[in-house]
Amino acid sequence: MNPSEIIKLKRNKNHLSREQIDFFIKGYLNGKVTDYQMSAFLMSVYFNGMNDEETFYLTEIMLNSGEIINLDFLNMPKIDKHSTGGVGDKISLILAPLAAVCGIAVPMISGRGLGHTGGTLDKLESIPGFNVNLPVKNFKEQIANLGVVMIGQTPELAPADKKLYALRDVTATVECMPLIISSILSKKIAEGADGIVFDVKAGSGANLPTKEESAELAKKLISVSKKFGKKALAVITDMNEPLGYNIGNWLEVEECVEVLKGKMVPDIFKLTNVLTGAMIYIGGIAKNLEDGEKIAADNLMNKKAYGKFIEIVKYQNGNVDYIKDSANLKRAKFKKEVLSSEDGFISELNASDFGYASIELGCGRKKTDDEIDYLAGIILKKKYGYEVKAGDVVCELYAESEVKLNNGMKRLEGAISFSKSKPSEKKLIIDILE
Amino acid sequence: MNPSEIIKLKRNKNHLSREQIDFFIKGYLNGKVTDYQMSAFLMSVYFNGMNDEETFYLTEIMLNSGEIINLDFLNMPKIDKHSTGGVGDKISLILAPLAAVCGIAVPMISGRGLGHTGGTLDKLESIPGFNVNLPVKNFKEQIANLGVVMIGQTPELAPADKKLYALRDVTATVECMPLIISSILSKKIAEGADGIVFDVKAGSGANLPTKEESAELAKKLISVSKKFGKKALAVITDMNEPLGYNIGNWLEVEECVEVLKGKMVPDIFKLTNVLTGAMIYIGGIAKNLEDGEKIAADNLMNKKAYGKFIEIVKYQNGNVDYIKDSANLKRAKFKKEVLSSEDGFISELNASDFGYASIELGCGRKKTDDEIDYLAGIILKKKYGYEVKAGDVVCELYAESEVKLNNGMKRLEGAISFSKSKPSEKKLIIDILE
Repeated sequence: MNPSEIIKLKRNKNHLSREQIDFFIKGYLNGKVTDYQMSAFLMSVYFNGMNDEETFYLTEIMLNSGEIINLDFLNMPKIDKHSTGGVGDKISLILAPLAAVCGIAVPMISGRGLGHTGGTLDKLESIPGFNVNLPVKNFKEQIANLGVVMIGQTPELAPADKKLYALRDVTATVECMPLIISSILSKKIAEGADGIVFDVKAGSGANLPTKEESAELAKKLISVSKKFGKKALAVITDMNEPLGYNIGNWLEVEECVEVLKGKMVPDIFKLTNVLTGAMIYIGGIAKNLEDGEKIAADNLMNKKAYGKFIEIVKYQNGNVDYIKDSANLKRAKFKKEVLSSEDGFISELNASDFGYASIELGCGRKKTDDEIDYLAGIILKKKYGYEVKAGDVVCELYAESEVKLNNGMKRLEGAISFSKSKPSEKKLIIDILE
Repeated sequence: MNPSEIIKLKRNKNHLSREQIDFFIKGYLNGKVTDYQMSAFLMSVYFNGMNDEETFYLTEIMLNSGEIINLDFLNMPKIDKHSTGGVGDKISLILAPLAAVCGIAVPMISGRGLGHTGGTLDKLESIPGFNVNLPVKNFKEQIANLGVVMIGQTPELAPADKKLYALRDVTATVECMPLIISSILSKKIAEGADGIVFDVKAGSGANLPTKEESAELAKKLISVSKKFGKKALAVITDMNEPLGYNIGNWLEVEECVEVLKGKMVPDIFKLTNVLTGAMIYIGGIAKNLEDGEKIAADNLMNKKAYGKFIEIVKYQNGNVDYIKDSANLKRAKFKKEVLSSEDGFISELNASDFGYASIELGCGRKKTDDEIDYLAGIILKKKYGYEVKAGDVVCELYAESEVKLNNGMKRLEGAISFSKSKPSEKKLIIDILE
């Protein structure tokens, strides 16, 4: 076999065999396939795709490039959740402790902010001292003791994904379904879960903006997961406006703490309970989704999940006092308000624009070595469908410098729309696929 | 500007500006654009193409990456011919001296065999001593003295093409129209010609097999050449069967010498005169194509072109005695004949198969460092449409080892077809575009 022959096969729309994909990926790791051949291959996959079988082989080969954690010693269902990425999407921070108190072991390996979407690791690290870099040994010990652990990717898991992901990032081959699927699943399966609930975002703030693409991605995530013998369920959810009221790392932790302590934020409450309920359901603890959702809601309202969250922070060296002091609002130095220009209703809070604006404010990175301002961000005072009067505060922006504040302000131009009449109800949960 | 942004623009079907292409190509030469980014870019161009303007910019930037030879000191039309590559395509060896005796200066820079097609340089080098590696200074001196010079690409001309070509070869991005066009024209324009006649092959033995693709390539070669202020004309010609009777480096030189000395080989005679006639016409010496063709045929038949060929060989250090001794047939050690299996007519001599078989026999390279057997090759005894009896010799194969001979024989299986009735006439000259 010859690398350029395999590139040509994919370029000419052929389906590749397990042997051909194996030769190419292993060759990439051992130096027989060069970076420039891999990038030509990835671009061919971008244009010609991969069928389910090829995607499965690719995932399997990437998975087997590293260690696969065995959690069989845990005598309980082990379920994780994966979100395709959104703006203000802080659900994992509430869901992980909540699922744990409902009898689900949650081995969660998360990522950092990417493009305009935030990352769970960056949010956790806004809690002083919180350690997301645990070796596999500690990961297993913590899940045995606490039933839940939240870390970042370790070098032992799916190293092929790590090498490929870095290359995709600089060769415009990120937005490609089989590459997205194999990247997600090779990591998720390596972490030892026996089931995964996918939160597939659709809308302006999602990485794949159309409903059709999101539905296709959801179906493929499920079918490939099942080929690995994993339980899987996908919830397609709206990402046209940011989730909850807060965007930004510490601001989102603060909002999670409020919800965990009983504050009612409708979209966060609903989505958390649906996703956690799905984990409870595919974990075999509830007999259907509705029951799962009810168990989740009960345990969120009785504040057991809050207690578990504090346990996680403590176990992973986070400063618990900093959390408990959250009512004492911590904010970045500079603040500006966006006011309503007219009387009417909010008809759009464009999630993508809010995401990019939050990056300008200092919540994320434009280059991999950029530093994050943990207290920067945006607090929405109004959401989609809310009535406003001209001059009302729609949102507050926070940044550590005036330059960043102004850049964030500028990036929000055109992000907010108004209508004279109340806009139609939006569906948060678009579809559920099993 | 950022390399991955430019890749993404092309991936998303945008047209690139001159500045963007310039940034990318110059960046590749100075190290700001990596090999893996260039190969992802080339694959995007493979899928999404380039319009005429982008192709022009790409060609211009590649051209300007090196020296451009100035032949203004020659007070005569300077016209070259380029063939897109065929099997048995030895026309350049007759056409170059013929055009020169007709008053055209011919600054010819040729290539080596590529894939299943032969290369003019390899054919010339089958003449012992013949030197195709002349520096620009000698190139200019020879064309001033002889009116014709035949060399290979020098490192000074279009170095961007050289670097890109090597990358395309190992990343399955060779067969791509804008990349083919910019590669051909950046070299051709660098050599100082003020006009180019293109022989664009169509059919099984061509690099772009369909007539439609060949016609599109011809049109684009003309339009881009004209944007550079060059005269241009394209002849689309049949490459379903090999040209002439001989395939292989020395065998083709031998056939050229025979034609130059007056032997009538119909397809070679016709094509040489049409292409040379086109050079005479666009060079302004004939008032139309027909007159140009007539001037060419006269000078081929009066053997002036033979004299000029001998002058070229002498000037470039080739062994003239070896040429003059060509009636004393020089052949590789081992020989096999392919016999007709039935009574009837030859309905196909698949040019691509004959090309690949000749590579097996030793006429070309499978890897860049393979050595060529100059005397190896194939001599056709019958051509398309000839009547045969079972047992008649259709062709003779020559190789320097029995292994090569057998591999060549095997590669010819299925290459020859027969029909009971005489097949319809084939058109050698399919179209002429200006």
